[in-house]
Amino acid sequence: MTTVEVRLHDHSYPIHIGAGLLGEPQLLSPHVGAGGALIVTNETVAPLYLEQLRAALTPSTRTQTVVLPDGEAHKSMATLECIFDALIEHRFSRDVTVIALGGGVVGDMAGFAAAIYQRGVRFVQIPTTLLALVDSSVGGKTAVNHANGKNMIGAFHQPTCVIADTGTLKTLSDRELSCGLSETIKYGLIRDAAFFEWLYENLDALLKREDAALVEAIRRACLNKAEVVAADEREHGERALLNFGHTFGHAIETGLGHGEWKHGEAVAAGMCVAADLSVRMGRLRQDRLPRILDIVTRAKLPTRLPRALTQERMLDLMAIDKKVLAGQVRLILLDEIGEGFITADFPQDALHTTLDVCRDVA
Amino acid sequence: MTTVEVRLHDHSYPIHIGAGLLGEPQLLSPHVGAGGALIVTNETVAPLYLEQLRAALTPSTRTQTVVLPDGEAHKSMATLECIFDALIEHRFSRDVTVIALGGGVVGDMAGFAAAIYQRGVRFVQIPTTLLALVDSSVGGKTAVNHANGKNMIGAFHQPTCVIADTGTLKTLSDRELSCGLSETIKYGLIRDAAFFEWLYENLDALLKREDAALVEAIRRACLNKAEVVAADEREHGERALLNFGHTFGHAIETGLGHGEWKHGEAVAAGMCVAADLSVRMGRLRQDRLPRILDIVTRAKLPTRLPRALTQERMLDLMAIDKKVLAGQVRLILLDEIGEGFITADFPQDALHTTLDVCRDVA
Repeated sequence: MTTVEVRLHDHSYPIHIGAGLLGEPQLLSPHVGAGGALIVTNETVAPLYLEQLRAALTPSTRTQTVVLPDGEAHKSMATLECIFDALIEHRFSRDVTVIALGGGVVGDMAGFAAAIYQRGVRFVQIPTTLLALVDSSVGGKTAVNHANGKNMIGAFHQPTCVIADTGTLKTLSDRELSCGLSETIKYGLIRDAAFFEWLYENLDALLKREDAALVEAIRRACLNKAEVVAADEREHGERALLNFGHTFGHAIETGLGHGEWKHGEAVAAGMCVAADLSVRMGRLRQDRLPRILDIVTRAKLPTRLPRALTQERMLDLMAIDKKVLAGQVRLILLDEIGEGFITADFPQDALHTTLDVCRDVA
Repeated sequence: MTTVEVRLHDHSYPIHIGAGLLGEPQLLSPHVGAGGALIVTNETVAPLYLEQLRAALTPSTRTQTVVLPDGEAHKSMATLECIFDALIEHRFSRDVTVIALGGGVVGDMAGFAAAIYQRGVRFVQIPTTLLALVDSSVGGKTAVNHANGKNMIGAFHQPTCVIADTGTLKTLSDRELSCGLSETIKYGLIRDAAFFEWLYENLDALLKREDAALVEAIRRACLNKAEVVAADEREHGERALLNFGHTFGHAIETGLGHGEWKHGEAVAAGMCVAADLSVRMGRLRQDRLPRILDIVTRAKLPTRLPRALTQERMLDLMAIDKKVLAGQVRLILLDEIGEGFITADFPQDALHTTLDVCRDVA
């Protein structure tokens, strides 16, 4: 087992990474008190891992479970109410621990519910997808979607512990695995060239789900994210780098309707679009682009915008994205592999050309 | 104009108190930026003060307004969605300022919306009831009700500025004024004997809405609350004293159905019940009780539990209150006028007797 310690302003917590951790009671027990636990999971994950998790909780712990429908389409205020109904029906009070067992959607919703139930209760995260492991297990961002925008309603709420069991990745679909690789590659691109090279060399081992490679990839991704978040907990500066590929990605997800493309797929295409714009602006060397497109393609991820989203539609969708400040779209671009930067100052014609050129023709 | 500065861990803000402040642009302008403002008010307050507030905003400020239905019954997730719909429809981003113009319900909902819109935006409070002025303008507590419990869903979110215009109290109903006096008297009872004596002497001036008396009462109430909150921002210790009368009060409100009794009325009866229990337990001198019942009666507030709520019903309602920790009800009681304390250790039979004795017979 490897542990990454996330150090924040007034709170630190461990991410335990390894195979088979889900069944180890001693990792969980320090974080569940007399107030009991509400497990939040979904209908896909529950049959696979719920019993194992319940067995790891001490028998005297009062435990209830909420099984949500699966999918980004259910990341809504309406689904959130199911969690509150369960918390209140079973009379859980301020000393309850909410445990998220599932991917990013379950983590975002359980975390947001924990953030606002009685103005904040304890939260433990057990991510079961690679995407959730490398992305949402660090940073404390929680949210639900609004019909007209992704993650529009949310809060910052840090977990007290994250348990990353690579065993749960064995049941993941290939498509979900690729989505996790998308955010993993992102860390290499924005701030860690050595990690990008490691990923470039070890991508096949990751696609074969070799435990050692998975643990190392998760460890380095979490370390990168933990460094960024520790420096900028409330996303005023450097943390915005983590949105690399996301302004374009969110536009794709909203434009196609949530659930059509997966988040990691939209981000992958978004990163390629951002790299293209970076080259077009003379910031990124042209020969870097094929290397980026290559690793994204080998990870079985899209490199181009969906055909359905024209330049005009993309611009409109981007304008509503929550990274808009005072009417200005801010983008994360690259100076080099491993060196991202934030800017609101980019030539509109370059953006227009990029949106045209990167759109899928098939 | 008097200003009370609320000093918190990593954030301070002013409460400006005086007659006619609503129309003074220089108080508001430092807190509204290029992102514009969303005014949240209700159908009762809007016709009285909305135009005055809009006029005080600089003409270049992008301003939109949401007018909510009036009343505690609308303090729900469903009404909250109206605020999000307006924020998103008008494409307000992270640099928007949400301005609450109204009583406690408007403040709680606008504040909660500001806390979770895009994970937190700026918030200015302009309370128009005495209750909101002395209670919710300090402390950063925001929330909505759940069908089965009051303030179950919420967040801590501090305003950047509070503007307390005593002019707005001239249009308040007598009943609303009394509700504000209820929470004002509370500060005297739990921690400020001198303020209790001042209130006892000046109650008639307050009932006549004399400006000087109102400003002084608001100033001393806010100072008391600011001291408590600064010492205990997240309600782990002393801040729980502010819940004096509230465990009983919330049970009354939930038991009768929200809106039947007003919050301040329920708290007034709750304080008298708590004082009765304090005497019964030998903690408060018996001769203090008439003095407490006297000021509450003169303030035109109830001193007894509603007849509809039997001992059994009250106990059941109190068990679900959010102050319940690991199944234990904690109560705030008095050792003396001006000296409250928190305890989970009280004789059940004394509580049962108090609930019977304090129930209204009429």
